[in-house]
Amino acid sequence: MSCSTGKNIVVTIFGQSHSQAIGAVIDGVPSGIEIDEAAIADFMKRRTAKDGLSTARHEADWVNIVSGIVDGKTCGAPICGIIENGDINSSDYDGYKTLPRPSHSDFAAFYKHNGFNDIRGGGNSSGRMTAALCFAGAVCIQLLEKKGIFIGAHASSIHNIDDESFDSADITANVLNGIKAKEYPVISDDALEKMKKAIAEAKADKDSVGGVIECAVIGLEAGTGEPIFDGIENKISSAVFAIPAIKGIEFGSGFGGSSKYGSENNDDFIKRDGRIITAKNDHGGVLGGMASGMPVIFRCAVKPVPSIEKVQHSVDLISGEEKEITIGGRHDPCIVLRAVPCVEAAAAIAVADIVF
Amino acid sequence: MSCSTGKNIVVTIFGQSHSQAIGAVIDGVPSGIEIDEAAIADFMKRRTAKDGLSTARHEADWVNIVSGIVDGKTCGAPICGIIENGDINSSDYDGYKTLPRPSHSDFAAFYKHNGFNDIRGGGNSSGRMTAALCFAGAVCIQLLEKKGIFIGAHASSIHNIDDESFDSADITANVLNGIKAKEYPVISDDALEKMKKAIAEAKADKDSVGGVIECAVIGLEAGTGEPIFDGIENKISSAVFAIPAIKGIEFGSGFGGSSKYGSENNDDFIKRDGRIITAKNDHGGVLGGMASGMPVIFRCAVKPVPSIEKVQHSVDLISGEEKEITIGGRHDPCIVLRAVPCVEAAAAIAVADIVF
Amino acid sequence: MSCSTGKNIVVTIFGQSHSQAIGAVIDGVPSGIEIDEAAIADFMKRRTAKDGLSTARHEADWVNIVSGIVDGKTCGAPICGIIENGDINSSDYDGYKTLPRPSHSDFAAFYKHNGFNDIRGGGNSSGRMTAALCFAGAVCIQLLEKKGIFIGAHASSIHNIDDESFDSADITANVLNGIKAKEYPVISDDALEKMKKAIAEAKADKDSVGGVIECAVIGLEAGTGEPIFDGIENKISSAVFAIPAIKGIEFGSGFGGSSKYGSENNDDFIKRDGRIITAKNDHGGVLGGMASGMPVIFRCAVKPVPSIEKVQHSVDLISGEEKEITIGGRHDPCIVLRAVPCVEAAAAIAVADIVF
Amino acid sequence: MSCSTGKNIVVTIFGQSHSQAIGAVIDGVPSGIEIDEAAIADFMKRRTAKDGLSTARHEADWVNIVSGIVDGKTCGAPICGIIENGDINSSDYDGYKTLPRPSHSDFAAFYKHNGFNDIRGGGNSSGRMTAALCFAGAVCIQLLEKKGIFIGAHASSIHNIDDESFDSADITANVLNGIKAKEYPVISDDALEKMKKAIAEAKADKDSVGGVIECAVIGLEAGTGEPIFDGIENKISSAVFAIPAIKGIEFGSGFGGSSKYGSENNDDFIKRDGRIITAKNDHGGVLGGMASGMPVIFRCAVKPVPSIEKVQHSVDLISGEEKEITIGGRHDPCIVLRAVPCVEAAAAIAVADIVF
Repeated sequence: MSCSTGKNIVVTIFGQSHSQAIGAVIDGVPSGIEIDEAAIADFMKRRTAKDGLSTARHEADWVNIVSGIVDGKTCGAPICGIIENGDINSSDYDGYKTLPRPSHSDFAAFYKHNGFNDIRGGGNSSGRMTAALCFAGAVCIQLLEKKGIFIGAHASSIHNIDDESFDSADITANVLNGIKAKEYPVISDDALEKMKKAIAEAKADKDSVGGVIECAVIGLEAGTGEPIFDGIENKISSAVFAIPAIKGIEFGSGFGGSSKYGSENNDDFIKRDGRIITAKNDHGGVLGGMASGMPVIFRCAVKPVPSIEKVQHSVDLISGEEKEITIGGRHDPCIVLRAVPCVEAAAAIAVADIVF
Repeated sequence: MSCSTGKNIVVTIFGQSHSQAIGAVIDGVPSGIEIDEAAIADFMKRRTAKDGLSTARHEADWVNIVSGIVDGKTCGAPICGIIENGDINSSDYDGYKTLPRPSHSDFAAFYKHNGFNDIRGGGNSSGRMTAALCFAGAVCIQLLEKKGIFIGAHASSIHNIDDESFDSADITANVLNGIKAKEYPVISDDALEKMKKAIAEAKADKDSVGGVIECAVIGLEAGTGEPIFDGIENKISSAVFAIPAIKGIEFGSGFGGSSKYGSENNDDFIKRDGRIITAKNDHGGVLGGMASGMPVIFRCAVKPVPSIEKVQHSVDLISGEEKEITIGGRHDPCIVLRAVPCVEAAAAIAVADIVF
Repeated sequence: MSCSTGKNIVVTIFGQSHSQAIGAVIDGVPSGIEIDEAAIADFMKRRTAKDGLSTARHEADWVNIVSGIVDGKTCGAPICGIIENGDINSSDYDGYKTLPRPSHSDFAAFYKHNGFNDIRGGGNSSGRMTAALCFAGAVCIQLLEKKGIFIGAHASSIHNIDDESFDSADITANVLNGIKAKEYPVISDDALEKMKKAIAEAKADKDSVGGVIECAVIGLEAGTGEPIFDGIENKISSAVFAIPAIKGIEFGSGFGGSSKYGSENNDDFIKRDGRIITAKNDHGGVLGGMASGMPVIFRCAVKPVPSIEKVQHSVDLISGEEKEITIGGRHDPCIVLRAVPCVEAAAAIAVADIVF
Repeated sequence: MSCSTGKNIVVTIFGQSHSQAIGAVIDGVPSGIEIDEAAIADFMKRRTAKDGLSTARHEADWVNIVSGIVDGKTCGAPICGIIENGDINSSDYDGYKTLPRPSHSDFAAFYKHNGFNDIRGGGNSSGRMTAALCFAGAVCIQLLEKKGIFIGAHASSIHNIDDESFDSADITANVLNGIKAKEYPVISDDALEKMKKAIAEAKADKDSVGGVIECAVIGLEAGTGEPIFDGIENKISSAVFAIPAIKGIEFGSGFGGSSKYGSENNDDFIKRDGRIITAKNDHGGVLGGMASGMPVIFRCAVKPVPSIEKVQHSVDLISGEEKEITIGGRHDPCIVLRAVPCVEAAAAIAVADIVF
């Protein structure tokens, strides 16, 4: 099921970067839940390119919901949302059919599909598919909010510039909403300015930069989740790797925690205001695959965009000839900021499948 | 399906740390494949405690294969292997029923199961379950080897001591076998000595240490895998988080790559000996969820063992009283070395599901 | 996964009878397969209402394929086909919101969804959804034909009039195509005339009739399928019950065979033209869940259409009052003929999942 | 997943007729539920051969539950039950390795597995596997009873002798228990005597007989289930075909209903004692895949046992030679009575997956 995920809330994503449309089907949504289409549109907008920091391709990403909602409420039937692929210039990709772009999926997709893969815009492996992911995530986010579960993320670093971190033991919906209300999902305005500069410099140099996204899921009741194969970490990681640029994920103290002593990394239980919590949150809100009730915190590594205008080297898959390759088209020098809602969406899809 | 994973090769793990037995069922294995039970036993032994570096509990982990194999060959029926739980001292755990051990699953499991969870030895969330995972992985490893796919890992760090890294662009079965032939899965003998010392010191201090495991999967043909939800990264990460101590995973340049420029991180294609490869392997062998044909390389973070003999703090789940807790029993000061075959097993289960 | 089925070829159906659109996503289709859209349109037409025998609602059922096909060939991405719901008169259903139609899904759907179900046209439980099923089936049929597997069905009875049966041990693609080429899928022209008369009489009497559909799948290699839970019978039966009117299914001698002696019902193996076959086919082409290589033969019971214009009795779900109910709108007096391609489609979806 | 079924309650069956053991793993069972092992043993006994009516092979079918239960209650971990295969005489099957028994799975299994299938006792396709099915079903039955859902069946016909039918609109737990308390699951004592005679005659004639089993599921709340692919009919039919001898299934009026008029077959809603029910139950308790709240009623066709001692004809799969075959060993002349609890078990597995 390469394009479906989930057991209770099943999300199926279809389309290619330059097919007539892309979209998502969300099955298993309980009936009678009010869906705010304006909030979905707002969420989609957060993923859209902005003011020179991102790709010049204009993606309005208006979602046409063709099923599953009656009079503004879910009716229990699958929700299908369709996004037309406008503003397409497939001819940009003619040259790449047999000359794979470095660190793109072209090479692998060619062999997987014996050359029948849709090369236009990266086909089914394109970052474009995250628009459908975001639609599905936007619906799941609304479902989760009804249960008091909130998800928010920020760019915790771009290139070598760090944003402030979440206070992992104390995150509120207000904190998350505050970041969403900003023009860019970066806590520190100072860091944002530096990030913008780094992106602009990379762009000027025909290069690209990556970063790290930190995401929090709050409101999960202790005991939510499963041990072994279907834990919170298994499911969130599996969902987040659906975003093409993600190359790593860590929960709580993660890789940093691996060099600590147990006595440093362990989180003592304490009682605070009648609730049992942990004083700090190195476990990232997950114990044995299940929620501890503390915020679930994870960070994921976003690789620098592979589409750069610098001269690179490739090999023609038919002739076997080594060739230079220069990637034209309209590409982001950095997709970290746009990937922030994508990470939230992936997390929401995973978490919704767990709690419903 | 919390205890099952996979679509083509379906692995189901059952048991608790102190139940009569644990085991695994492996369904979907093609018929007519020779299974080397001695090799399975050898693999299980790699997970077993050794000479003071690990827990004093003696776990022979002999697997009784009760179905699926006739005259040494798979017959197409599910393979079920059963491991008796001997050498159990459940009374060690009497005290923890309502006093959760810090950074253990006890707390979450209590709420998930309204107190009906099996607290003995950590129940179904115990590291003990990785014995069943290793059995399933050992079978999958044999299946994969028939297809020329080999998996091997090493402790790339313990606490603050680093082992040498794999040469990510050039790993052979010989390299992997060489590490397996060593007493401990560490490339550098010098690093191993320092690691042993760090572990001994932690133990002497009633503390514990964690580390990082680096794993390679070689022999995957370009195009193996899927985009979006069922890619190599999705499936390996999901499987690896079945190991209780894992808190992070990264592929290729991973988190390090997120601060590089695209021009540094991208892997040019070149032609070498008639094959198209990449000169370096920052993409970790995975492009768009699919294999590039280069070694699949990932690293995962192993948290320090939460069971330490130091005084810690907890809260009684019934009385609500804050209490001191000291964990007795027999516990590893470091499970990184033992977790190395577990990571290989998890990767094998994920990869077998992809290639069969 | 109520609206998805399959493991290798995953079909997801979305929409409601009166939503903006319905459709299907077909995932797992190998790349490079030519898809004949005209053949899909022809297949859809077979399900469409005809000349007074069926409903007056005009359903063009043109499928807009928005993804998965490039230059007439599959590209490996999911195929999504969308069918707009035109010619809708939802006001017909205003009265049924709380007054459930006898033997319709309204009653159950109301309780399942606490009244939030889409009552218009039967919502997600409507026979209308079989248009999406037929689209998915039409694609699967084309995939199967590439492997030499052909599927065809006919109305083996309507009301109390029997068509001729298939010669279960000897069915060819020509036989199946011959039936498809006819205006109605009935082997005997004489039987068809009587069936038409029975339908017309039922209509005149504001009543409806049902029937039985016999379906054959030919070309499956011996050994195709699985024992226990995923056998050919399990999967075909599960798929066929997705058609709302189906209330029974039998393979081979089926219910009739249950009163035979083993010596009568058993099918001896014989050698014919170098192939091992069975002389007769009481086993219906399935042994232990797996194909024997003989035609897979099954029959399914189609209940008479529950929408009839006669006065019936119901109870208002809110007031609890017993009331008379007369169903207006445009309804088929018999859907057996239109259900024939639906049964083929369901079988194709099940079989495609088995053989791919 | 040929040997697993379910989404919420996942049942995995392993073993072969003559492997060391067979068994089942039941995952997803909520914690804190009391499991009555004596009741499981009683259920298993109902499947066991009795007094000359069935096979001479003595199958004690004692289930060793090795995990998932602590102090008599479920702990949330998967329940694994293991049944040793004693009293095996595999040499009986030496002759069938390449000479397939008519209407057995041997032929198909040989081709599926290129001859590596376990021929002994029918391997993984054997009726023996229903012991594991019954164990899983017995557990599910206990889970369902806690929710007020009861399942019971009887032999509604053997050969050409009919038992009385259930009163489909009015079945109580008492009625079902009354049948279970009898030595054989037949309502009419008179019918039973005739059935015994028919079985004895078939046995004397080295022949076998089949029959029909009628099963009821009571206590499902209206609205339970799903439309389209995961309805009650889809899931029960899929589960019941896991029993090797089943060749057909019908719900409610089933095949008989297909020749009725809509006005006859439709079930009016009425109010009785404050509840909305249907006066009769031709819909078999299922409307649009969902429960109506009336008893779910289905009948399934059991083919006559294919193992008969009469001379039959087969073809050697290696030499291609046509040969006579006479089946020795110890075989039932009729398995309908023993299959009654198997059908209940299959239904329980399907229904438990729906309601949990």
